[in-house]
Amino acid sequence: MRIAVIGAGALGLYYGALLQRAGNEVLFLLRRDYEAIIRQGLTVRSIAGDFHLDQVRGYRSPGEIGPVDLVLVGLKTFDNRLLPELLPPLLGPGTRVLTLQNGLGNEEALADLWDPGRVLGGVAFLCANRGEPGTVHHLGAGHIFLGAYKQENTSAAQETAQLFRDAGVRCEAVPDLVRARWEKLVWNIPFNGLCALLDKPVDALLAHGRSRQLVADIMGEVVAAANAQELSNSLDEALVGTMITFTEAMGPYRPSMQIDREEGRPLELEAIFARPLQRGKERGVAMPRAEALLALLEMAVGTGG
Amino acid sequence: MRIAVIGAGALGLYYGALLQRAGNEVLFLLRRDYEAIIRQGLTVRSIAGDFHLDQVRGYRSPGEIGPVDLVLVGLKTFDNRLLPELLPPLLGPGTRVLTLQNGLGNEEALADLWDPGRVLGGVAFLCANRGEPGTVHHLGAGHIFLGAYKQENTSAAQETAQLFRDAGVRCEAVPDLVRARWEKLVWNIPFNGLCALLDKPVDALLAHGRSRQLVADIMGEVVAAANAQELSNSLDEALVGTMITFTEAMGPYRPSMQIDREEGRPLELEAIFARPLQRGKERGVAMPRAEALLALLEMAVGTGG
Repeated sequence: MRIAVIGAGALGLYYGALLQRAGNEVLFLLRRDYEAIIRQGLTVRSIAGDFHLDQVRGYRSPGEIGPVDLVLVGLKTFDNRLLPELLPPLLGPGTRVLTLQNGLGNEEALADLWDPGRVLGGVAFLCANRGEPGTVHHLGAGHIFLGAYKQENTSAAQETAQLFRDAGVRCEAVPDLVRARWEKLVWNIPFNGLCALLDKPVDALLAHGRSRQLVADIMGEVVAAANAQELSNSLDEALVGTMITFTEAMGPYRPSMQIDREEGRPLELEAIFARPLQRGKERGVAMPRAEALLALLEMAVGTGG
Repeated sequence: MRIAVIGAGALGLYYGALLQRAGNEVLFLLRRDYEAIIRQGLTVRSIAGDFHLDQVRGYRSPGEIGPVDLVLVGLKTFDNRLLPELLPPLLGPGTRVLTLQNGLGNEEALADLWDPGRVLGGVAFLCANRGEPGTVHHLGAGHIFLGAYKQENTSAAQETAQLFRDAGVRCEAVPDLVRARWEKLVWNIPFNGLCALLDKPVDALLAHGRSRQLVADIMGEVVAAANAQELSNSLDEALVGTMITFTEAMGPYRPSMQIDREEGRPLELEAIFARPLQRGKERGVAMPRAEALLALLEMAVGTGG
């Protein structure tokens, strides 16, 4: 299968590398890593075993890539404004587009530009960071839940999930993508937000009584907001405890938003905070702690508005 | 009147200087400013007019001061652990002790060491910072509401208020000290906390929609907690708007907790946050934003517990 990866950060490079290793023709749209990858290929340093791809197809513009069977979108969500320029050259009659981005609003951004029936969304539980150019570090997990944006279109989701499984990724097609997105927000809102604000890794937050309680309380707010969204079935309150246990196993992991802030990039506040808070508010769910965290993050990075 | 000032930070130096200028014998217990004040006196740079005191009585230990008529306590609240050592040498049969410290628990700390009927508390609305050693900057306001710790003892409060008025300070004796303390907490909890966390002055917080709303929401939580404390009369919800307007006039003011953090001192989290939150909790008042702020401050300064 011919697959384009746009937004080749840690997530795009990691899954793209696995898909290529499994025999697919993967075409990477590259910025920072272009020179290094063209010269020396792509290295994955992974808890599941390191590997190196000698020959990697890297491109500077989507026009050089042309139409593909599947577009994998790993852009930072604040770069979705680039989609009208990046996406069309990659589209052919049967192209499917899968976003593995964080937060809410990403499938909608794609469905503005392409047949909504060919839009898929996925939630990746992946701990990965970029290393030096041409290297990606896979630190933990990596499973994906994916679903069709239009719920009726399940064969596309099933086939795409199979593609990832064939590449060695634990991947499941889920009937309710919205539910999967909210489930990940239960993790993303507290950990991305608090780690980015305080510049502390996840284990630091869990090591102290009050901040651990704050994590749990924010998670509870997100569960409540999720369960006001007419999901196919409700998120269980017990998810809070499960996610905290899962996070403890990560050690001093730094979430993507913390790294974005350290490296001076914008933060994904719209997709991960503002839209979910808006959806909660529309359904009358109070999210005082998550709202406070958004206000603090905006002040901290100087985008208070 | 013979007055000892212990905890001669901006507040102690400022009010001590005014009381001396009005003819009282003021004896300052000094640490950082000792050398400078002994050598060259004390300079007050004030919006109400600068003045300089040539001769200032500064001491290294309370034993050198001996018994006084009034002890003015301006210690940082985390230094209340020093009171058992600092206070006794200053006490004579009629000594009154007035704390102008922030937060809750200060009168109690004094009443553990001295006749509770001689303990007074005051709430100072003073914008002041220390400058170079021997100089204090008075930037705004300065009025005091004070009351007896034991409410029946009102003549002591009246006489002490008169002492301050004679020194040019707007000062009122109030019948309900607990109410006055909570009223100031409505300001202190959001502004001290948020400015210290974000290292931004008060006007930055008020300049952006979401953080301004957060300030107002936290104030609302403190008003609700206050009004669960059986005050003589309730705090008005309109206080929130009044205080925000009052704060806007301060410009880029940096609250004491922000300066404490910048200068690497401990923060007054126990008196200004933990005790008020505990009192709110005991009365069943939810303070999710103020609680979140305490957790964040503890993490930020590494005292998470």
